[in-house]
Amino acid sequence: MKVTVFCENDEGLRNNPRVRKAYPNGFGQSIAAVFGKNTVFVPHDKGEDGSALLKYLEDTDVLVWWGHGLHKYVSDEVAEAVADRVKRGMGLIALHSSHMSKPFLKLLGTTGTLRWRESGDNERLWVVNPAHPICEGVGEYVELPHEETYGEHFDIPAPDELVFIGWFKGGEVFRSGCVFNRGFGKVFYFQPGHETFPTFRYNSIKRILKNAASYVAPKHGVGPALECKHTPAPQKR
Amino acid sequence: MKVTVFCENDEGLRNNPRVRKAYPNGFGQSIAAVFGKNTVFVPHDKGEDGSALLKYLEDTDVLVWWGHGLHKYVSDEVAEAVADRVKRGMGLIALHSSHMSKPFLKLLGTTGTLRWRESGDNERLWVVNPAHPICEGVGEYVELPHEETYGEHFDIPAPDELVFIGWFKGGEVFRSGCVFNRGFGKVFYFQPGHETFPTFRYNSIKRILKNAASYVAPKHGVGPALECKHTPAPQKR
Amino acid sequence: MKVTVFCENDEGLRNNPRVRKAYPNGFGQSIAAVFGKNTVFVPHDKGEDGSALLKYLEDTDVLVWWGHGLHKYVSDEVAEAVADRVKRGMGLIALHSSHMSKPFLKLLGTTGTLRWRESGDNERLWVVNPAHPICEGVGEYVELPHEETYGEHFDIPAPDELVFIGWFKGGEVFRSGCVFNRGFGKVFYFQPGHETFPTFRYNSIKRILKNAASYVAPKHGVGPALECKHTPAPQKR
Amino acid sequence: MKVTVFCENDEGLRNNPRVRKAYPNGFGQSIAAVFGKNTVFVPHDKGEDGSALLKYLEDTDVLVWWGHGLHKYVSDEVAEAVADRVKRGMGLIALHSSHMSKPFLKLLGTTGTLRWRESGDNERLWVVNPAHPICEGVGEYVELPHEETYGEHFDIPAPDELVFIGWFKGGEVFRSGCVFNRGFGKVFYFQPGHETFPTFRYNSIKRILKNAASYVAPKHGVGPALECKHTPAPQKR
Repeated sequence: MKVTVFCENDEGLRNNPRVRKAYPNGFGQSIAAVFGKNTVFVPHDKGEDGSALLKYLEDTDVLVWWGHGLHKYVSDEVAEAVADRVKRGMGLIALHSSHMSKPFLKLLGTTGTLRWRESGDNERLWVVNPAHPICEGVGEYVELPHEETYGEHFDIPAPDELVFIGWFKGGEVFRSGCVFNRGFGKVFYFQPGHETFPTFRYNSIKRILKNAASYVAPKHGVGPALECKHTPAPQKR
Repeated sequence: MKVTVFCENDEGLRNNPRVRKAYPNGFGQSIAAVFGKNTVFVPHDKGEDGSALLKYLEDTDVLVWWGHGLHKYVSDEVAEAVADRVKRGMGLIALHSSHMSKPFLKLLGTTGTLRWRESGDNERLWVVNPAHPICEGVGEYVELPHEETYGEHFDIPAPDELVFIGWFKGGEVFRSGCVFNRGFGKVFYFQPGHETFPTFRYNSIKRILKNAASYVAPKHGVGPALECKHTPAPQKR
Repeated sequence: MKVTVFCENDEGLRNNPRVRKAYPNGFGQSIAAVFGKNTVFVPHDKGEDGSALLKYLEDTDVLVWWGHGLHKYVSDEVAEAVADRVKRGMGLIALHSSHMSKPFLKLLGTTGTLRWRESGDNERLWVVNPAHPICEGVGEYVELPHEETYGEHFDIPAPDELVFIGWFKGGEVFRSGCVFNRGFGKVFYFQPGHETFPTFRYNSIKRILKNAASYVAPKHGVGPALECKHTPAPQKR
Repeated sequence: MKVTVFCENDEGLRNNPRVRKAYPNGFGQSIAAVFGKNTVFVPHDKGEDGSALLKYLEDTDVLVWWGHGLHKYVSDEVAEAVADRVKRGMGLIALHSSHMSKPFLKLLGTTGTLRWRESGDNERLWVVNPAHPICEGVGEYVELPHEETYGEHFDIPAPDELVFIGWFKGGEVFRSGCVFNRGFGKVFYFQPGHETFPTFRYNSIKRILKNAASYVAPKHGVGPALECKHTPAPQKR
């Protein structure tokens, strides 16, 4: 399974002391490390259109996307290329504030809006679908000592599979783990992962992400673009 | 719209001082009052098989069910009659601990199990589907100063429509408002309503229950029992 | 309820003798006539970007879209304006070959591809959700003496509600009536309606379309654009 | 993976010349042969309550059920034991006329009714979810030269995953392959398989059944019965 991690890496993020403390080896690098040695990390800097991703895209089974402040710089062409490859079978894991990323919104068709607060309150991530492969080995819930608060209403289509619901100390709930099927591909949205907290270094979160990558990976390759087919009537016996 | 409220009314419930304080006009009576004057209240006492309901069942558009400690006394025949009428078009509103009632489980096919705690903590009931008719006029969430805590994992089939998610101060979340379609009928499960708290006297809760009754009511009557039909081939032009 | 019908009306369509025979009062005009006197018909001609629709869009409760050969001329801005209004509450009825129209694909996030054949074979449109409001008064199926054949695989997300499945004499099946919820709005895709057959003049089809318009119409108006909300923690009691 | 096949085997079935011609090695035996050598075949004869199954049930990963005329003889206890084990994680494949079998109806909560005709017309089984593991290697459709006709409306809850839609020459359509999640278990309903046609001997059907067994098999064992859990508040950091 070939995983590519596309993650913001601008100066503000790199030099933020809280990010450096939470991720001494680098933020995007740490996300990539979850998925094993052969994972490619494609950093996204301010002003870049994201086309650095295109070099790896057609060789990617699962694309992991983390974006927050730089969504607007990603070109429509890159977003369309990602969405297109998902529809042909590639898995996509959209992390945290990627709920507003262009490829995610193209695939969902809604606004992805939500309520939020940088409170650093704790979150408890509850499993609501314990037989789901993404939850395997996770237990009944995951405790996150600090996370950015995300709250409903989250403007997404009803997910094909709802896996996690987040509880936040400040009083919010959130559909924190959702699977959406689009064409031949699967999209997993996962809410935790604010850059100033070491979320991606917790074993339970790593477990979920690895489970998710296996779950959304294409089982039989990524196909060509679909087209409408004119077909004669099938011959009947 | 003819509403029938089937609600426990045993001595323990009637004489509980906390219930009397929360519902001076009676518990089941107060639930019935939500739905207007013509609503029938069918009390359910310890040891009774529930057959008192049968007198009203075939004249009921929406059945509201509240049960907790007396589920086991309801006979399979009564439970089957209720489930059968739902499949033919009657609406069912299953309140609070009715998640373990026989008709609800017959219609869902799962165990309905959950985690719980009588903490009296506060609950915040979040709307996750703001365009849904059951939420009309409710706002973004409903604050309940005290409720029994119910928590995931709630063993239900994925609801056809998820309307509310509850947040509990003690750290739990719960799919608190769920619509299930079964045959021609609709079932709305609604989690709030522990007998010692005046939940059913709050305007926002009354609003939700009235919206729900309109939503699950049969639009074109309740039909006969379905049967498999042997049919000749439809004639083609 | 204010209905706007956006429908192709280029010379090829207008002057096609088969279309004229099937719709002596005009094709788009006949679709508009289904929805009553106050319905606005916005014709779409070759090369036009669809912006003629914008004059009516913000006053529209339900937009009916019929497109086939001119999808590419509709500008992204117009498609985005339609999709945006749907997410804010407007209903959309996408007819027949509108499965490839820009607004529909923006809202669905898939390719909308299918297999097809202009056979003129007959179609039988089966009701698979008889309690659904869109089927009211329709019976068990609708017989269409001639329709263009559409067949699976139809590349759409799993519909929130599947209402009709089409049977085609040549051997195909199709998910012919599908409801998708997107934000505050509802989208109904309906497969029948090739321009050379008098489909929109049949009473059963008119009934379905009128039912659908009532079903997807916003119940409480169309709201402003959603935005992410920064919110302080709700105060708890 | 341990598969158990519970299949009718009464004298009428055994001695029917058409069944013998279609399945020279025996009908239930031929179904069992699809799943490999270690599969247990539990025959069900007229008047038997099905308790012969109980000997194998707790050692079964995937139960395959074929019933038609003998549903009524299966005791409620046996049906409940099957449904209970599914909710704890066992996979269930309900074949053909098992749409009216007791365990299937207990798990679904609807009547399972449909329209039917023993026409021997041909069926074309269309894949409507080509990325689903159950379809792997199957192609766009499967041609069945002769099958009993089953038609909508099929009274089931909206399936969690719709995989196949059947087309019948006589004019019907049917949701022929449906996955339902119930508790920790998965149920796959599959419509083809009338005893007088050699359906279960076709390679494409064998492929689907083997795919389905892998898909519904428990990935992490079958657990104990779920119970409501009283839990103290989780300790927060």
